[in-house]
Amino acid sequence: MSDEVDAVVERVRERVTPGDDERAELQAVADRLTERGEDAIASLPVDAHVVRVGSTARGTWTAGDRDLDLFVCFPPELDREELEEYGLSVGHAVLPAGHEEYAEHPYVKGTVDGYDVDLVPCYDVADAASIQSAVDRTPFHTRYLAERLDETLAADVRVCKQFMKAIGVYGSDLRTEGFSGYLTELLVLEHDGFRPLVEAAAAWTPPVEFDPADHGRESFDDPLVVIDPTDPERNVAAVLSTEQLATFQHYARELAAEPRTDLFEPSESEPVDAETVRAWFERRGTTPVAVRFDAPDLVDDQLWPQLERSLSGVTDALNRRGFDVLRSAAFADETAVLLAELEVAERPAVERHEGPPVHVRDHAEGFYETYADSDATGPYVDGDRYVVERDREFATASAFLRSDALSNVALGTHVASALESEYEVLVGEEVAPLAGEFGVELADYVDPKP
Amino acid sequence: MSDEVDAVVERVRERVTPGDDERAELQAVADRLTERGEDAIASLPVDAHVVRVGSTARGTWTAGDRDLDLFVCFPPELDREELEEYGLSVGHAVLPAGHEEYAEHPYVKGTVDGYDVDLVPCYDVADAASIQSAVDRTPFHTRYLAERLDETLAADVRVCKQFMKAIGVYGSDLRTEGFSGYLTELLVLEHDGFRPLVEAAAAWTPPVEFDPADHGRESFDDPLVVIDPTDPERNVAAVLSTEQLATFQHYARELAAEPRTDLFEPSESEPVDAETVRAWFERRGTTPVAVRFDAPDLVDDQLWPQLERSLSGVTDALNRRGFDVLRSAAFADETAVLLAELEVAERPAVERHEGPPVHVRDHAEGFYETYADSDATGPYVDGDRYVVERDREFATASAFLRSDALSNVALGTHVASALESEYEVLVGEEVAPLAGEFGVELADYVDPKP
Repeated sequence: MSDEVDAVVERVRERVTPGDDERAELQAVADRLTERGEDAIASLPVDAHVVRVGSTARGTWTAGDRDLDLFVCFPPELDREELEEYGLSVGHAVLPAGHEEYAEHPYVKGTVDGYDVDLVPCYDVADAASIQSAVDRTPFHTRYLAERLDETLAADVRVCKQFMKAIGVYGSDLRTEGFSGYLTELLVLEHDGFRPLVEAAAAWTPPVEFDPADHGRESFDDPLVVIDPTDPERNVAAVLSTEQLATFQHYARELAAEPRTDLFEPSESEPVDAETVRAWFERRGTTPVAVRFDAPDLVDDQLWPQLERSLSGVTDALNRRGFDVLRSAAFADETAVLLAELEVAERPAVERHEGPPVHVRDHAEGFYETYADSDATGPYVDGDRYVVERDREFATASAFLRSDALSNVALGTHVASALESEYEVLVGEEVAPLAGEFGVELADYVDPKP
Repeated sequence: MSDEVDAVVERVRERVTPGDDERAELQAVADRLTERGEDAIASLPVDAHVVRVGSTARGTWTAGDRDLDLFVCFPPELDREELEEYGLSVGHAVLPAGHEEYAEHPYVKGTVDGYDVDLVPCYDVADAASIQSAVDRTPFHTRYLAERLDETLAADVRVCKQFMKAIGVYGSDLRTEGFSGYLTELLVLEHDGFRPLVEAAAAWTPPVEFDPADHGRESFDDPLVVIDPTDPERNVAAVLSTEQLATFQHYARELAAEPRTDLFEPSESEPVDAETVRAWFERRGTTPVAVRFDAPDLVDDQLWPQLERSLSGVTDALNRRGFDVLRSAAFADETAVLLAELEVAERPAVERHEGPPVHVRDHAEGFYETYADSDATGPYVDGDRYVVERDREFATASAFLRSDALSNVALGTHVASALESEYEVLVGEEVAPLAGEFGVELADYVDPKP
């Protein structure tokens, strides 16, 4: 067994290790861009320098990755406006065909010889605890790892990243909520290799905590805690969700149980068509309902938390009203969709409504007077309480979703405004044609994997 | 307001107080039967005597009531067999046309001059704490109250019983679970009248405790506790249910809010017909289901607890399986019926089934292996757990009720055997014709009162 895992890992390692040509080419491009940056800095009225960060700087990129991250480090005294102005001017000098994007600061992004290059300004602070903006931390990470990752460990980092990509847990963006590159590198380093890491992970009982620099002081309420060796107050795994951690554990065991290289091969599902979707829901006897609207124009890191919040607001509201949600999902492309698969699409015209205990005299008398002469059935006494059966506000899930009551649901701000302008509600078979825009997403929905 | 209540009570009091003729006639019958009893005792090889007990002995019966209870008190040394033999012989001598019934002991029941007469043997024990059978307590109750209830209070007891009968809370049988005659008398005595009792009851916050003889030692887990003045270890109100206490409180307030004599007039609902029942369920959009079987041949005090237990077993099982019960009821006559009104009569073909947390390795691996190659959808990871969507055992409530699974439900013993031999399941409109046998019960179901 052990040999089989080693053999699989070895095969993957060969595949993801960049060859000498790739390394040399990347080095050449990076050197050229760094030089251009330094030239541009020379004409500025301020001292600064260019550093390479990220996986290409640490030698932990997987073969074929073409991301180059260059940071321009400015003195910490520089005010923010100047930093941004100088940062952009260096950026445009290095990447004349680039365009500006905005994260913590504006920065310049462009393509050079097939490489996706980011040119980001940051403050050159004394240590990671004194950072003035989140990106200031990055050079410290690169330095910490560069000192500790030899080529053997770097190779294992590449294998680990490949594994995480294939099983869908790689990336600390707010849609994936998975493992960042830095987190992956720290974990491989901490366990001294990919194989010991997955063997340990297979047996983890969260919360699991690592503190490589042994300087943690705070406690974190996260399933995985890895104290940043360059900043004792930060959990590097803060973004990782419980679900993605469990998924990683699942596949760590799967690798041990049935070692095979396809666990390292990302694959996108074949899209399903409308008829497949229709037949699938029909066979299950559930009722899918979908709220569809124009996707808000936001970057993924803003969009997805809003979609998730909205989806959970809608499913909570559906559940509270008795339209029991079996499963739900959010999709986004040109349009965005909140999909809920209902066990119960229709409730009776009446609902049971419990009043106060009869012995709580003031409340009880008020409740009784309210309902005694109403159309409600009752009040009658059940246990120690008054109960009535009164008209239900919404007998169908679609009536609720089409009503103004939807706006009282906890939604993301931009989703709320999108819904205010226009949305459609699809019920039952009307959901099936969503396969046109979301065939891959629906393929994953009808055949969910760990 | 106060005057109005007094006026109502006064009118009721006049109506329920037996006239001189009724009293004299009852006295004459009681004397004659007592004499017959003493004569029969004289020919026995044991000392014994006849005592009158119950409301007619205490002067608290309501006009028109025709119950006469005579107890034959035997020495406590007598063994049980002899007590039963002698008791029956006296019974048959007093009531030659009577028949035997069985409670704690066998006893003789018969009709004399239009009076329902019970002739019950008991042990003449020294005090209520030394009783050998439950009925031995009764003469002590009669003696305790006879010494304390004057005619004014006796009149208030009659008014109170009339009120309780009208609102359906009078009777300590296990169907009614209401107020016994003795309990009613103790409460009127304790509060020094009907009016003060209902005024107090309107404001009670259960648990409420009274201890007229100030000798209680135990604590009881009942909503109303009245320590028996003849037995410190007994709660006279042990049978009273939370619901019936709340109902009494409700009508006590109703009497104060809108004093009127019809609160003292028992009325049976007009039976509804099948079409009314059908239309009523249709309007509500609920699905009634009924299990109907031959009523077990049991006395009410055995039958009703079993029906209630069975009803709660069936509704619990329906709720667990997602067929949400809005309200339920049991009926019994020639046949017995367990009726449940469902909000959801059908569920999807699949159900969500949560597995263990992924990190609980042994369980998690077992669960994953069980379902990975099955027809179930999943396993996928939700939160920290594996989840599958597998075939549901019963998609409809009727399929469940018609299946063997019904026999795994907690049912009363005799109900279980009745169902083993034969039962039918009625669904939706099929329930409506029950109005033929249970028109009054269904009238109360469609228009429930406090």
